[in-house]
Amino acid sequence: MSIERNIAALGEELRKIARDLHQIPESGFEEYKTSAYIIEKLKSIGVEVYSGIAQTGVIGLLRGSENKETIAFRADMDALSVEEKTNLPYASKHSGMMHACGHDAHMTILLGLAKYLVEHRKNLKQNIVFLFQPAEEGPGGAEPMIQAGVLEQFHIDKILGLHVFPEVDAGRVAARPGPMMAQAGEFDILIKGRSGHGAIPHMAKDAIVAAATLVSSFQSIVSRSIDPMEGAIVTIGKMWGGERRNIIAGEVHLEGTVRAFREEVFENIKRRMKLIIQGIETAYECSIELVFRDMYPAVTNDEKLFEDFVEAVGKEHVDVIAPQMIAEDFSYFQKEIPGLFFFLGVKNEKLNCIYPLHNCLFQYPEETLMTGLQVYIQYLRHVGVVAPEPDAEIFAG
Amino acid sequence: MSIERNIAALGEELRKIARDLHQIPESGFEEYKTSAYIIEKLKSIGVEVYSGIAQTGVIGLLRGSENKETIAFRADMDALSVEEKTNLPYASKHSGMMHACGHDAHMTILLGLAKYLVEHRKNLKQNIVFLFQPAEEGPGGAEPMIQAGVLEQFHIDKILGLHVFPEVDAGRVAARPGPMMAQAGEFDILIKGRSGHGAIPHMAKDAIVAAATLVSSFQSIVSRSIDPMEGAIVTIGKMWGGERRNIIAGEVHLEGTVRAFREEVFENIKRRMKLIIQGIETAYECSIELVFRDMYPAVTNDEKLFEDFVEAVGKEHVDVIAPQMIAEDFSYFQKEIPGLFFFLGVKNEKLNCIYPLHNCLFQYPEETLMTGLQVYIQYLRHVGVVAPEPDAEIFAG
Amino acid sequence: MSIERNIAALGEELRKIARDLHQIPESGFEEYKTSAYIIEKLKSIGVEVYSGIAQTGVIGLLRGSENKETIAFRADMDALSVEEKTNLPYASKHSGMMHACGHDAHMTILLGLAKYLVEHRKNLKQNIVFLFQPAEEGPGGAEPMIQAGVLEQFHIDKILGLHVFPEVDAGRVAARPGPMMAQAGEFDILIKGRSGHGAIPHMAKDAIVAAATLVSSFQSIVSRSIDPMEGAIVTIGKMWGGERRNIIAGEVHLEGTVRAFREEVFENIKRRMKLIIQGIETAYECSIELVFRDMYPAVTNDEKLFEDFVEAVGKEHVDVIAPQMIAEDFSYFQKEIPGLFFFLGVKNEKLNCIYPLHNCLFQYPEETLMTGLQVYIQYLRHVGVVAPEPDAEIFAG
Amino acid sequence: MSIERNIAALGEELRKIARDLHQIPESGFEEYKTSAYIIEKLKSIGVEVYSGIAQTGVIGLLRGSENKETIAFRADMDALSVEEKTNLPYASKHSGMMHACGHDAHMTILLGLAKYLVEHRKNLKQNIVFLFQPAEEGPGGAEPMIQAGVLEQFHIDKILGLHVFPEVDAGRVAARPGPMMAQAGEFDILIKGRSGHGAIPHMAKDAIVAAATLVSSFQSIVSRSIDPMEGAIVTIGKMWGGERRNIIAGEVHLEGTVRAFREEVFENIKRRMKLIIQGIETAYECSIELVFRDMYPAVTNDEKLFEDFVEAVGKEHVDVIAPQMIAEDFSYFQKEIPGLFFFLGVKNEKLNCIYPLHNCLFQYPEETLMTGLQVYIQYLRHVGVVAPEPDAEIFAG
Repeated sequence: MSIERNIAALGEELRKIARDLHQIPESGFEEYKTSAYIIEKLKSIGVEVYSGIAQTGVIGLLRGSENKETIAFRADMDALSVEEKTNLPYASKHSGMMHACGHDAHMTILLGLAKYLVEHRKNLKQNIVFLFQPAEEGPGGAEPMIQAGVLEQFHIDKILGLHVFPEVDAGRVAARPGPMMAQAGEFDILIKGRSGHGAIPHMAKDAIVAAATLVSSFQSIVSRSIDPMEGAIVTIGKMWGGERRNIIAGEVHLEGTVRAFREEVFENIKRRMKLIIQGIETAYECSIELVFRDMYPAVTNDEKLFEDFVEAVGKEHVDVIAPQMIAEDFSYFQKEIPGLFFFLGVKNEKLNCIYPLHNCLFQYPEETLMTGLQVYIQYLRHVGVVAPEPDAEIFAG
Repeated sequence: MSIERNIAALGEELRKIARDLHQIPESGFEEYKTSAYIIEKLKSIGVEVYSGIAQTGVIGLLRGSENKETIAFRADMDALSVEEKTNLPYASKHSGMMHACGHDAHMTILLGLAKYLVEHRKNLKQNIVFLFQPAEEGPGGAEPMIQAGVLEQFHIDKILGLHVFPEVDAGRVAARPGPMMAQAGEFDILIKGRSGHGAIPHMAKDAIVAAATLVSSFQSIVSRSIDPMEGAIVTIGKMWGGERRNIIAGEVHLEGTVRAFREEVFENIKRRMKLIIQGIETAYECSIELVFRDMYPAVTNDEKLFEDFVEAVGKEHVDVIAPQMIAEDFSYFQKEIPGLFFFLGVKNEKLNCIYPLHNCLFQYPEETLMTGLQVYIQYLRHVGVVAPEPDAEIFAG
Repeated sequence: MSIERNIAALGEELRKIARDLHQIPESGFEEYKTSAYIIEKLKSIGVEVYSGIAQTGVIGLLRGSENKETIAFRADMDALSVEEKTNLPYASKHSGMMHACGHDAHMTILLGLAKYLVEHRKNLKQNIVFLFQPAEEGPGGAEPMIQAGVLEQFHIDKILGLHVFPEVDAGRVAARPGPMMAQAGEFDILIKGRSGHGAIPHMAKDAIVAAATLVSSFQSIVSRSIDPMEGAIVTIGKMWGGERRNIIAGEVHLEGTVRAFREEVFENIKRRMKLIIQGIETAYECSIELVFRDMYPAVTNDEKLFEDFVEAVGKEHVDVIAPQMIAEDFSYFQKEIPGLFFFLGVKNEKLNCIYPLHNCLFQYPEETLMTGLQVYIQYLRHVGVVAPEPDAEIFAG
Repeated sequence: MSIERNIAALGEELRKIARDLHQIPESGFEEYKTSAYIIEKLKSIGVEVYSGIAQTGVIGLLRGSENKETIAFRADMDALSVEEKTNLPYASKHSGMMHACGHDAHMTILLGLAKYLVEHRKNLKQNIVFLFQPAEEGPGGAEPMIQAGVLEQFHIDKILGLHVFPEVDAGRVAARPGPMMAQAGEFDILIKGRSGHGAIPHMAKDAIVAAATLVSSFQSIVSRSIDPMEGAIVTIGKMWGGERRNIIAGEVHLEGTVRAFREEVFENIKRRMKLIIQGIETAYECSIELVFRDMYPAVTNDEKLFEDFVEAVGKEHVDVIAPQMIAEDFSYFQKEIPGLFFFLGVKNEKLNCIYPLHNCLFQYPEETLMTGLQVYIQYLRHVGVVAPEPDAEIFAG
């Protein structure tokens, strides 16, 4: 999509910010340098700053002329324990850490939005919150920020967020109404039978044989207990048990994940998992412990927000994608207030921007920082939060 | 083995009896003609007769000089619903019924024994009971005769029985100490899920998928819960369920059998079956009904009786066989008093005596009637019930 | 939705036609009375008639002024072998047959459309084909009509069809862009092991144990081999095998269905089914025969047609539904030319129109005949095939 | 059983030897100190010595007057990597090694036998070989000694061996004719699927799901493919696979053992294992590697030797035990020549001799050294290898 001249003019500054942030990747809830950088920038831009929320979270507040509604934009701040191998001049300076998920871009776009809106403050009708949250990669910073009361304190009515996405071409965005990213859960299972000599099986309770039936029975959850039109996954990714080949295994451990798009489906999976586990306990005379951890809810876009968003951006620039099995804690905000999440395309083969998220070679075209900013501003204008500006001139297509 | 001249002399008469009985095969508990024939014979031989026991059962009693102990010999009277195809001149005259399991031979040998002992009565020290029981093929006549009090009434101390056996050469016998024939049980299982359209599985509970896991789990009973040194079998022989290909099956039926040699093993199989059924109910959200019918206990030969028997018959004529998975209700007597059961070889290829029990072509060499009689008499002499006889002369080898 | 006065005026006549057709339900490819009725009606209306296509199929052709494009509307003619129990005065006169799937309504609406268009012929620009096909319920009449060359002969460019649908309220329609109804397949599996005595399993190959593993392994097709975002079903609805409880089963039969929305998914299911069958053959030493019958392809709506349709009908009257696992042979037309299929709501609790399709109590409100006609006409006006009419006055809301 | 005075007289010396050997436990094929000790003893006793056979094996040869036949007696020399915790004054001096399997007793009894026979040489008719083999615990020293030609070189016609056995009372022996200890095999299985993100299972081949079906299918080997009267075991004792809970496992490893008593059964197990593996490869689209290692054959006692042995020892002192699922490489000798292996009871609760073999607290009553010697001598007398001795006087009961 096209970038306006006055947005393009911010390019140099955004590039610098993104590179600064890229060099200081930090773990979830330990984004201290990052937090300090953001606070300093927001202050210098001229925005009210609230910090130390949910450990390292930061809020910037810009008040509009009407002061009736508040729209929040969210960026996540944390990085991954990945050793960067991009060889970029501004590569990570923190050994073993990398912004391999592009959160540096998310923060930069938000700072760019703050800068732009302060410069065009006379046209701003509503309040804008710039929400920087920690620990999106886990265990999650969105929920603690909500628990800290930010939605009430700043009277936030709706929220938007984005994620760079290497499966969509740079210059485009992707989203869908309703469920877009999956609800996720993790589970640990410990099957305890009774070990014994491999030659006297009747004196033991073979936990490996019990585990085999458990794994096979779990396949029937998706195949038989879930509406075939619903996306759902139960994966056991890891399994280990037994001590020696000729000793019947007394214990088997299994670790896995669950994904679904609707709470009801998710709960049904859990329910059948528990029933199968209970059934295997009885049938194979062992005891089985299940630890199930609910992770993030499903990212579910508000229908109205999505419609406005598509009109604002222009239908021709939006890929309406299928729901994705990956997860995001932006969903916690959406459980409270209407929210819209979209993917910002960053795929560009010429610039070698082809690597998947979390890869040590991941990078995005710096021009997409302006695309993200342009999208946000067009949305604000379309819904009348920012009055039409006569100086909005198109720069490039 | 060799047949004594004085036993061989009974041959003509035994052949006639056997042929008479062979022509009037009758169902279990309906052996009325057979019973009448036996009563008549016993009376003409000169033995006390008690009849109408457990419907059609008959007891012949011959008192010995010392009158201290009582040894019983048992024969079974019932036939099978098989259409005979032997073309023998004395083939069954009862359409659709046949002595395809050789019980006619068993009865004949017993009548021969009565005849012989009456003729040699002066040498008989102990009491002898000739026990003719109904319905061995099922549902079992041994137990009702015991319940009718025959063991107490006639002071029976031990019991012997035999079965013709086409896997052992004519002229030989086969047996083993301890467990020789299996304990048997039958089961019916009905799995009730919930039927529904094949395209909306989540609204149904698929009984076929539950049944599949049940069948697979049943394999782990023998493979994991039973001492590998113990013989044990769980077979599901029949299975049916569902109405139409595109309707999820609401019900599945299974029918099967269980075999083992020791009560403890048998009970352990039942126990795991019940646990697996209960577990599948829970895991697959269905209800499962189990009907388990205990059939005959294991035929288990008394060690001392077996030893005496082998010495009496001569080691060289006895095959010490592995336990057999087939069942016999002679075992009910053995639960009460010491008992010995053995197989009387009837295999003879020249005489076309090669067909298995229950086959419509089954037959046995008539000479084996004398072999059976010879074996019984040698046993009685060996244990001193019948005094040595100077006229015991060998006829054939 | 609202019905125009000039359409409502046709009500009496449509009711009569529907009742006439309802009384003469006929099997697929045997719709002789039905066919004759339609031919007679089309002729009296004043439309060119072509008959005897694919046995009983009928085509009505009405030429427009511009004669450039041809739009076809399709109705299916066959009924079901169901004994009607509605007690309607115009219930089926063919014992054991019933229009329990509402094809009588489909044909009536098409005849109503012919009548209307002939009456408003001056406004008609394009050619219209009224396509009456046999045997939708199976084995399918759409494919034979295509093979008979109707698409080429009449230069048909696009096609529309509808089905009454008791899960949608009367007065509304339901559809979706892209895949809307599933591709279907049927399969028969015969597992041949080797039967044998239940007590000597090692001499047999237990087909029931093999079948159990096959059924369980089939669960892994949907759970592991199919994109969780794709609808897919593998159901084994019927299973039977074995002769007697104590004989190891030599044969097991299974019957089932497969459903999917994309050819690629459908083929992948078949591929894994074949691999599993081949694997079970090897692992359980049996031979397995698979007969797989491809049934109808997926009903897949053209995106542009769907968009036009929604605009024509009015967004507020259209339920955008999830794909349905049921199947329709309208899909054969869509494989050749752009096509749109939609559900016409017929649910009305007051009128007792609540029973599912194929039920012996199924019925629809007769007013929905006009709704269907109204929808077709609005579509034709919206895409400019029928010129705007000044007399189009609203009758009811 | 009773110990003769002249055997009891050797008690002091045997105790000393056993204690000496107990203090120098060594690994298989590294029994250098042990070997040196035995050589020295055999020489001082006055027996021909051949050493360095199969690394550390030693042969003592004592020629009899007739020099016609040669009977071998076998002892094993190796110890286990177990830290001894008995607190005996003569406990192991080799840290981390212990004669926890009683091979010290076996060697001592053999040296005692040599001593006795040299002392009574005038009565010895046949040649006697005292065979000390390395590495019974694995990988096996019997086979290498046979390959080194000892059976031919010393014209060995039959062989006897024993093992101390804490499940049988001290003073008794246990054995059985025919198969007594199992044939054993080890297997490693590596299932290679294709790893992938846990949320896109269709792009991966889940090795854990394949492994589950493999484990379940393995249960059907014993339950369905093996004669229920045959002892057989397939145990998977260890299993591990996958890297992370949300990554579909690309590899699963399984380790297990197989036991049976007859070659035919053993080979049948291997055959079905291979078929199942091949079937799972196909059904689950993975490749599976099987490494199967044949371990020791079944210890199978010669019927005639067993009969002689029971008569020699006295029926009342012999437990005829069921076959044991444990394994022994004495079986390699029995594949070449008639051999007899028996268990020497060492259970004595008062002396705290109650711990199982391989346990760090295992010990045996030192009196059983004389029992073992007594048994061997009685056997030699019974079969006429040693002439009756007038001085054989009973010492204790």
